[in-house]
Amino acid sequence: MCELLGMSANVPTDICFSFTGLMQRGGKTGPHRDGWGIAFYEGRGCRAFHDPAPSAESEIARLVQRYAIKSRIVVSHIRQANRGRVCLANTHPFARELWGRTWVFAHNGQLKGVKRLPVDFYHPIGTTDSEHAFCWMLSRIRERFPQSPRRPQTLWRCVRELMEQLGELGIFNVLLSDSRYLYAYCSTQLSWLTRRAPFGRAQLVDADWVVDFQEETTPGDIVTVVATYPLTANEAWVIMRPGELAVFADGLIASGIER
Amino acid sequence: MCELLGMSANVPTDICFSFTGLMQRGGKTGPHRDGWGIAFYEGRGCRAFHDPAPSAESEIARLVQRYAIKSRIVVSHIRQANRGRVCLANTHPFARELWGRTWVFAHNGQLKGVKRLPVDFYHPIGTTDSEHAFCWMLSRIRERFPQSPRRPQTLWRCVRELMEQLGELGIFNVLLSDSRYLYAYCSTQLSWLTRRAPFGRAQLVDADWVVDFQEETTPGDIVTVVATYPLTANEAWVIMRPGELAVFADGLIASGIER
Repeated sequence: MCELLGMSANVPTDICFSFTGLMQRGGKTGPHRDGWGIAFYEGRGCRAFHDPAPSAESEIARLVQRYAIKSRIVVSHIRQANRGRVCLANTHPFARELWGRTWVFAHNGQLKGVKRLPVDFYHPIGTTDSEHAFCWMLSRIRERFPQSPRRPQTLWRCVRELMEQLGELGIFNVLLSDSRYLYAYCSTQLSWLTRRAPFGRAQLVDADWVVDFQEETTPGDIVTVVATYPLTANEAWVIMRPGELAVFADGLIASGIER
Repeated sequence: MCELLGMSANVPTDICFSFTGLMQRGGKTGPHRDGWGIAFYEGRGCRAFHDPAPSAESEIARLVQRYAIKSRIVVSHIRQANRGRVCLANTHPFARELWGRTWVFAHNGQLKGVKRLPVDFYHPIGTTDSEHAFCWMLSRIRERFPQSPRRPQTLWRCVRELMEQLGELGIFNVLLSDSRYLYAYCSTQLSWLTRRAPFGRAQLVDADWVVDFQEETTPGDIVTVVATYPLTANEAWVIMRPGELAVFADGLIASGIER
């Protein structure tokens, strides 16, 4: 099983603290030795780092930890390969452009028969089930909406329907973003936490690091972190239910839709 | 004017030496302070780094210089903005997927009226002329070839025709790759150099660095470097002619087509 990490914030925020926890699971406190990747949005721009090497030993991971890239939406993934060999083309998150926006996708789980689903607009570059699922989903969204629908809720409903269809094929925990929203779909395991004033201290589960967010933030900051398993021991994470899609905007949950 | 750097090689090769020369031009020996980017192919996978900060001061540029990423095709660009503000979404190289391959594009120059050209399959994320030209070109290739043509020469001819059309709109020096070939189109200024056995010493123009490639290579290595201006003082660079498209594969020129 792979691990996911996402962030939605109302101000550009670095993800160093959470990322450090996640990276430990890549070959140190966890078995996810088959590469990792992270995408940071800056406005409509998207900056991604991918490495097929284990994150706990990755030179690029150390850069991302040291060099506090600030972003309002982040999607990250560390991989324990089950389908598709370990190589750059198979390293999440995957990205495609739709409606002049970069869409980014990371998946934890396995899907049975997903490669029978037709892709047309978007084609996989690597050989993973995950990228095929992403290409199918984005092809369907594009087919239904040649242009971005005016009401965001119209799009969210479409995303949820497609996520549900894919969820029927196996385990499908997913983080997705279109540079405006962060979508988190829980098939078996996903949790989230919103930090806002009054901020307190947080203790990582996977590394010996305590942060006092009061010292790191301003009173108006709102930051939501989404992760496969809670990353901190002393905060109240929301454990998502199977079949639930949560949509985050500017650090807050915009919509929680259960099946 | 921006500067371009590309590489095509028959074995995975690092570009540290040439990249170091280029980076000096980003705010130190050159005026290109408005960001830089580099894309490395690894098989079908593509790893890109973008930074809106000047390359001579960039933390990420230092990582790329230190951490010798080996690749057979590289496309890089440092920017002196003329159209489109300085931000991540406007930082070359731009990337899109076509036929399950990542296409990467970097442009030096300015185009007049390019935004009147229709884009349909691919839409710009940022606001540069360059990305619009890329989206138009890729939309036209896709329209003409829903699947990759069997003979590479068929594709090369199409690429040349589209490059020529864009070249009529202004200055259009371009590096393009589809993960198999490196395309270099010269509108006003572009040069290339193939290094192969017997290897000699090379002296960077922009930094105090001499490399003896005999010590860095094996006898079968073939590496072509493409750059706006020659990067070394003591090697015989080929200066391309206006209207010329050169296609490189495995380090060698596969086709040089003049208008």
